[in-house]
Amino acid sequence: MISITKPTLLLNKEQCLNNITRILDKAKSSNTHFRPHFKTHNSAFIGNWFRRLGIHSITVSSVSMAKYFASFGWRDITIAFPVNVLELSLISELANELTLNIQGDSSSILQTIESALLYPVGFYIEIDTGHHRSGVPWKDLNEIDQMLNFLSRSNRLKFKGFLTHSGHTYAADSKEEILDIFKDTVRKMNDLKDQYNEAWPDLTISVGDTPSCSLAEDFTGVDEIRPGNFVFYDLMQYSLGSCSLEQIAVALACPVVGKNLHRNQIIIYGGAVHFSKDFLYKSSGERIFGYIVRISDKEWSKPVAGAYLASLSQEHGIIHATKEFIEEIKIGDVLAVLPVHACLTANLMKGYLTLEGEVISY
Amino acid sequence: MISITKPTLLLNKEQCLNNITRILDKAKSSNTHFRPHFKTHNSAFIGNWFRRLGIHSITVSSVSMAKYFASFGWRDITIAFPVNVLELSLISELANELTLNIQGDSSSILQTIESALLYPVGFYIEIDTGHHRSGVPWKDLNEIDQMLNFLSRSNRLKFKGFLTHSGHTYAADSKEEILDIFKDTVRKMNDLKDQYNEAWPDLTISVGDTPSCSLAEDFTGVDEIRPGNFVFYDLMQYSLGSCSLEQIAVALACPVVGKNLHRNQIIIYGGAVHFSKDFLYKSSGERIFGYIVRISDKEWSKPVAGAYLASLSQEHGIIHATKEFIEEIKIGDVLAVLPVHACLTANLMKGYLTLEGEVISY
Repeated sequence: MISITKPTLLLNKEQCLNNITRILDKAKSSNTHFRPHFKTHNSAFIGNWFRRLGIHSITVSSVSMAKYFASFGWRDITIAFPVNVLELSLISELANELTLNIQGDSSSILQTIESALLYPVGFYIEIDTGHHRSGVPWKDLNEIDQMLNFLSRSNRLKFKGFLTHSGHTYAADSKEEILDIFKDTVRKMNDLKDQYNEAWPDLTISVGDTPSCSLAEDFTGVDEIRPGNFVFYDLMQYSLGSCSLEQIAVALACPVVGKNLHRNQIIIYGGAVHFSKDFLYKSSGERIFGYIVRISDKEWSKPVAGAYLASLSQEHGIIHATKEFIEEIKIGDVLAVLPVHACLTANLMKGYLTLEGEVISY
Repeated sequence: MISITKPTLLLNKEQCLNNITRILDKAKSSNTHFRPHFKTHNSAFIGNWFRRLGIHSITVSSVSMAKYFASFGWRDITIAFPVNVLELSLISELANELTLNIQGDSSSILQTIESALLYPVGFYIEIDTGHHRSGVPWKDLNEIDQMLNFLSRSNRLKFKGFLTHSGHTYAADSKEEILDIFKDTVRKMNDLKDQYNEAWPDLTISVGDTPSCSLAEDFTGVDEIRPGNFVFYDLMQYSLGSCSLEQIAVALACPVVGKNLHRNQIIIYGGAVHFSKDFLYKSSGERIFGYIVRISDKEWSKPVAGAYLASLSQEHGIIHATKEFIEEIKIGDVLAVLPVHACLTANLMKGYLTLEGEVISY
């Protein structure tokens, strides 16, 4: 492995490809379109791994991200974020180059969007099936009718269907609850589809959170899925039951810069500017910012028993561990950390080092 | 003001300069050396504002940051982070170009450092006065003696003195407690200085946390201060009593992309990849990720009563606010947010827009 001298995001490419093909295979066998969300890896290089698996349509979460992937040849992009009317001229430019879909949840801004577009854009009505972040409440047929009324007369906004992100799966207490939310989402979205199918025979429904897409064995009844985090997974997903520890495909390698036997602590070069600050709670109430793994040539170990990343300053991380482990570790060693939230960690690190030693910088 | 179309970090340059000169003046009148920490702004451009005020020595928190500022002509840099022995060759290179200081808290690695350096480096023994992150416990004279024993024979490591970061001020419940911690820190550091002054007549003590440096009116008895966050301040500092709301010099401008009158919510384009995820607690227990201000030509308002940033996804922020405020705000408006932790927000945004319309991108 290339020598590591500072915080470096390790990527297990083989596991990453397994994560992709697992969801892709389930989508194929369910006859569901797979439009992976690229916000997690945010890398044109890793995007090419998807492309080689026959995936040509993607999801992003900002106009900037759409522009980035468009510049690497992606020609079918859904921006799964409430349309930012301040970027309509850029959206219009992109729509001239590629098949672009946007989403909205308010009839009040449709005229503004329509007026600013020079080229046709696919339009999804975002539905709130229970996450309560954005989206038209699924029962608010009045607002949906108002939007469809506008869309039926629109020259630029081409109605594509209903889209939702059931992010409330992240608050679920069990796999069963996640699957219940998934079933509930599919039912609500299909109710809408049934209701509007006659007027809009081509409408589709698009859903997409990693917990649901990881745990459901079958996506029957769903036209499209858009999960993102599954490409790497992380401790948040592990704690939800969406993945095993072995499926986590990224670990942040961090130099050991200090240790304190009195407090059972190891100090690493790796802080909030590398991990971001999402955490989980231990049953005893302490925060966990990551699990600790040992790295060796081309692999990392299972988490070290009793060791976890307990706090983060801007550049420091503090690991709590057993006395035995701390005695064994030397200043200048490199440990790796399974992150709590891979999306935010990857966003900060802006690059990867595969276990085969390949540097991925875009 | 230049038109804002996506999350943009606004900088009130006048307030920023006031924040700098206020601490600089206190340091001057206390005859204390001011070595500001540049990790908060991390900008060579803003660094020049300090330079114009006569400041020529700085603090950074990584070798990479030292290299960056060295490339912009800074010639006196302290890396206030436990020395990363995996970057000793880079440290040695930097030491050839400039006056470089490093810090350590363990005699066990001094020989490793000494052997790798080709040029002399200033060395501070890091002291733990109560923060319990890193540093030799201030009472552990045995370890200090061992380190000094090595340093007295070293050709490359030039002992400079004792350095501490009393970060436990961030857990204080009142201004009085912060000032008590500051006094306690100064006393402990001076005890050490007195103890070793005869053998090392040039040794200095260096302290530096923003809460202490903001609240103490006088730094007498301290040779050097190294605060960082004071350049911008933020809600964390405000909650500690280190600053007023008016002293906060950055606000993240975010487009409004949705609103929900049922739930009293405004949805902004501005999430964890812009703010990071530090938060404060409201007295009622909810998390606060920022206060909301209105922006107009060349200024921002006081925080809007009853409005706060209540949750963050990767790109979305959810503001809770009064019905009246939500009714007044339109999709496509731009609101700004006073961040909880300016250092992490600035690290993510990698650029500033001053209220005068100047774009700062490095």
